[in-house]
Amino acid sequence: MTAATSSQPTCVITPEFLRDLARIVGPARLLSSEDELLVYECDGYIVEKNVPDVVVFPETADEIVAIVKACLASDVPFVPRGAGTSLAGGCLPVGGGVMIALTKMRQILEINLRDRYAVVEPGVVNINLTRALAGSGFHYAPDPSSQGACTIGGNIATNSGGPHTLKYGVTVNHVIGIEFVTPDGDLVQLGGPTGRGNNFDLTGLFVGSEGTFGIVTKVWVKVVRNPAAYRTMLAIFDSIDDTTQAISNIIGAGIVPAALEMMDKGIVGALEEAFHFGFPLDAEAVLLIEVDGLEVAVDAEAQTITQLCKDTGAREVRLSQTEEERALLWKCRKQAFGAIGRLSPSYCTQDGVVPRTKVPEILRFIAEVSERHDIRVVNVFHAGDGNLHPILLFDERDAEQIKRVMLASDEILSKCIDLGGSVTGEHGIGVEKISFMNRLFTEEDLIVMEDVRKVFNPSGHCSPGKLLPTAGACGMEHIQQSHPSRRAAM
Amino acid sequence: MTAATSSQPTCVITPEFLRDLARIVGPARLLSSEDELLVYECDGYIVEKNVPDVVVFPETADEIVAIVKACLASDVPFVPRGAGTSLAGGCLPVGGGVMIALTKMRQILEINLRDRYAVVEPGVVNINLTRALAGSGFHYAPDPSSQGACTIGGNIATNSGGPHTLKYGVTVNHVIGIEFVTPDGDLVQLGGPTGRGNNFDLTGLFVGSEGTFGIVTKVWVKVVRNPAAYRTMLAIFDSIDDTTQAISNIIGAGIVPAALEMMDKGIVGALEEAFHFGFPLDAEAVLLIEVDGLEVAVDAEAQTITQLCKDTGAREVRLSQTEEERALLWKCRKQAFGAIGRLSPSYCTQDGVVPRTKVPEILRFIAEVSERHDIRVVNVFHAGDGNLHPILLFDERDAEQIKRVMLASDEILSKCIDLGGSVTGEHGIGVEKISFMNRLFTEEDLIVMEDVRKVFNPSGHCSPGKLLPTAGACGMEHIQQSHPSRRAAM
Repeated sequence: MTAATSSQPTCVITPEFLRDLARIVGPARLLSSEDELLVYECDGYIVEKNVPDVVVFPETADEIVAIVKACLASDVPFVPRGAGTSLAGGCLPVGGGVMIALTKMRQILEINLRDRYAVVEPGVVNINLTRALAGSGFHYAPDPSSQGACTIGGNIATNSGGPHTLKYGVTVNHVIGIEFVTPDGDLVQLGGPTGRGNNFDLTGLFVGSEGTFGIVTKVWVKVVRNPAAYRTMLAIFDSIDDTTQAISNIIGAGIVPAALEMMDKGIVGALEEAFHFGFPLDAEAVLLIEVDGLEVAVDAEAQTITQLCKDTGAREVRLSQTEEERALLWKCRKQAFGAIGRLSPSYCTQDGVVPRTKVPEILRFIAEVSERHDIRVVNVFHAGDGNLHPILLFDERDAEQIKRVMLASDEILSKCIDLGGSVTGEHGIGVEKISFMNRLFTEEDLIVMEDVRKVFNPSGHCSPGKLLPTAGACGMEHIQQSHPSRRAAM
Repeated sequence: MTAATSSQPTCVITPEFLRDLARIVGPARLLSSEDELLVYECDGYIVEKNVPDVVVFPETADEIVAIVKACLASDVPFVPRGAGTSLAGGCLPVGGGVMIALTKMRQILEINLRDRYAVVEPGVVNINLTRALAGSGFHYAPDPSSQGACTIGGNIATNSGGPHTLKYGVTVNHVIGIEFVTPDGDLVQLGGPTGRGNNFDLTGLFVGSEGTFGIVTKVWVKVVRNPAAYRTMLAIFDSIDDTTQAISNIIGAGIVPAALEMMDKGIVGALEEAFHFGFPLDAEAVLLIEVDGLEVAVDAEAQTITQLCKDTGAREVRLSQTEEERALLWKCRKQAFGAIGRLSPSYCTQDGVVPRTKVPEILRFIAEVSERHDIRVVNVFHAGDGNLHPILLFDERDAEQIKRVMLASDEILSKCIDLGGSVTGEHGIGVEKISFMNRLFTEEDLIVMEDVRKVFNPSGHCSPGKLLPTAGACGMEHIQQSHPSRRAAM
């Protein structure tokens, strides 16, 4: 297996090229003036910025085919964008070029309850599919915290998770078919209504490829029966170690909660100020635990969990008594990031993974890093999965603080690797973490990944500068940090 | 995306080459005499036969690296083999060459209950892992009917399912890491104890690649907590349509049974004769239904299922009263294929998939085909998944009967495609179904699959003649049936 060098797209945007694009989508669905483009200079990862040369808003797969072909003919790179909620620069137009915004492709094309699937366009906002299913007894299971804004196309790019990942799985477990425009400009389909077939799982491979395999135009997803009943609990702890022990004990008892989320004192304080839920401000950490299933089962599970938490030192375990109380608790959890605004003008949500048994160790390490760099860190995370989201608070107007945040992030993620984990659980590599790839993977690993990508994206024009450190774009050179190569999860 | 033509390995086995192999594994672990090789001329698919030129029994990954390098140096193809239980010719040494038998690599290397995984060699027999976990409260979930013989390496090749697939998923859902020797002779690792990472899911891609991506040397699999309780039921029906309607109603009620297996009158008769379970011989079909979970939940689910079956016309629903009764019921189901020996000297177990809602239609079609070709067909299948296993009974000493069996199989599988399904649910394409690939997939689809395979297996020396109709071996030409190309699940 040998790596081929990827061609470097050059970004010369000619007036003819712009006219070509305008002919495809019409002038009203094309942005090219400086002030309009500024909106698209970054996504949820605010540290790196890069203005695209032009943004187009296609409405059909055929328009995307034509856009991609025009880009290839003019040697211009292109990048898809959903809602721009990526926290890792997944939508950043590295080196410029054409941004293909999919926000106008937001139709739910079919809902087939008998065969348990829905067909949606890539720009459908995640929660809108579940809303469209209201009253049917079904929902779309992957529920990232940003589900009120993020799109299903974007969820495919990063293989999004969410609080209910623990029981229901991530996006790849729910996508059964993808229609997409290849980076060569062909419209192809993987899988479909009857699922992913029994051959090479190319649909599964596509999910998580961060826009580097092509532009999604249509998606077949499973719809999941709503549970007959659920119980939602808040367990309150005076010690982080007790909290993580309780998590271990719940999982160890053979219970798979629908959600098992941990929030520390810092985030709980911000949430209480924002939502007045009645969180105890002196607790070191709380667990939000939800079980679902049959009515008789959830009561038994809730009782077992309550007992396990109390045995592990929980001060109190509160069971949500009403639907309103449950909704407010989930609102707190899902809008935790919004509440951070009360603590700090800017924040950086990190995304790391450690084996569940290493959660106490990584939390102690984060506290130590926080103190050493004088950067406040609060924690909210998918505890059942070992997927942590330390939130680093800072003021982006202070360059020196940004530097310390970057250092602290780097140390935390490096520690995740050392503990046998990964630098991302669900936000993706994007541009943010590309320099970690050489630490996570051996050179041989990266060559295989690059070779697989080249099957789909041979010219490298589609989403350059993302995910893999090997493909460059428009004069951009990624500085590859040299670390001892390491055998790791690939 | 363009397809490259694959080189055709030539099978010239020189005495020097045999000496090279003998130096690697020792003469006691090499077979090359005609009578010894005859044992390896086929697997569970008895229709095509091909004797390998030599069989080697490596004991370490390093030996496999050396074997693969020796093969490449002498331009000899090679194929891995586990227990040889493939029903699709997955172990057939197409065009000859070296068979790498993995049956001596059968160590369970590690069991880590705290982090919920086990590490095994590829030749570990599936059931032996669950046996090694006895008393720990855990088991290995994928449980093909052949689990008493088939190996975990072979399960990876075909992405094996089993009766408990409906709730617990197939092999790909349980494999978190693979160490393998690439067809170039490198030892590499995908994934590992902390899972499959968040990048291109190459581990997932490998599972189901039918030995064409390399030779597995080590596997990390999840171990699953045993359910606290289960209830096992036998529902007895006087009509096939009622049976399939009951399946629909159970799934429609939002229950996911741990297993939902259907057996028709023909197979039930054979089972009764073999095991004396007490099956009613006049029933048209029976459902074996198992639910698992918490004690309180399984009773409620069992009651609901009983009521749903009765409402749909079940004559009787029997709940297993003792562990012995349950064990016997499962023995009947898992050894159904053995019992077929009472009906016929030979049989061909087909493997097709249809959308669950098309089960009544495909069963009517199978009955019609059976009558038209005068080939008796009995049915046992994973009804909850729409994965059918019609068993065609014949006498392999009668060439004319074999011809009719092939015709009937072809018609049944073609109908599965027409109904929106697939020609294999879990047995794989192997050599048996390679001519269907052009009907299931478009030319463009197959080119992408071939290009992905070439990343791993550029010379085509590893498992030639399997899975894809594009790569040949040793003077073998697959006759590609020309059918209108069709967009299908890929």
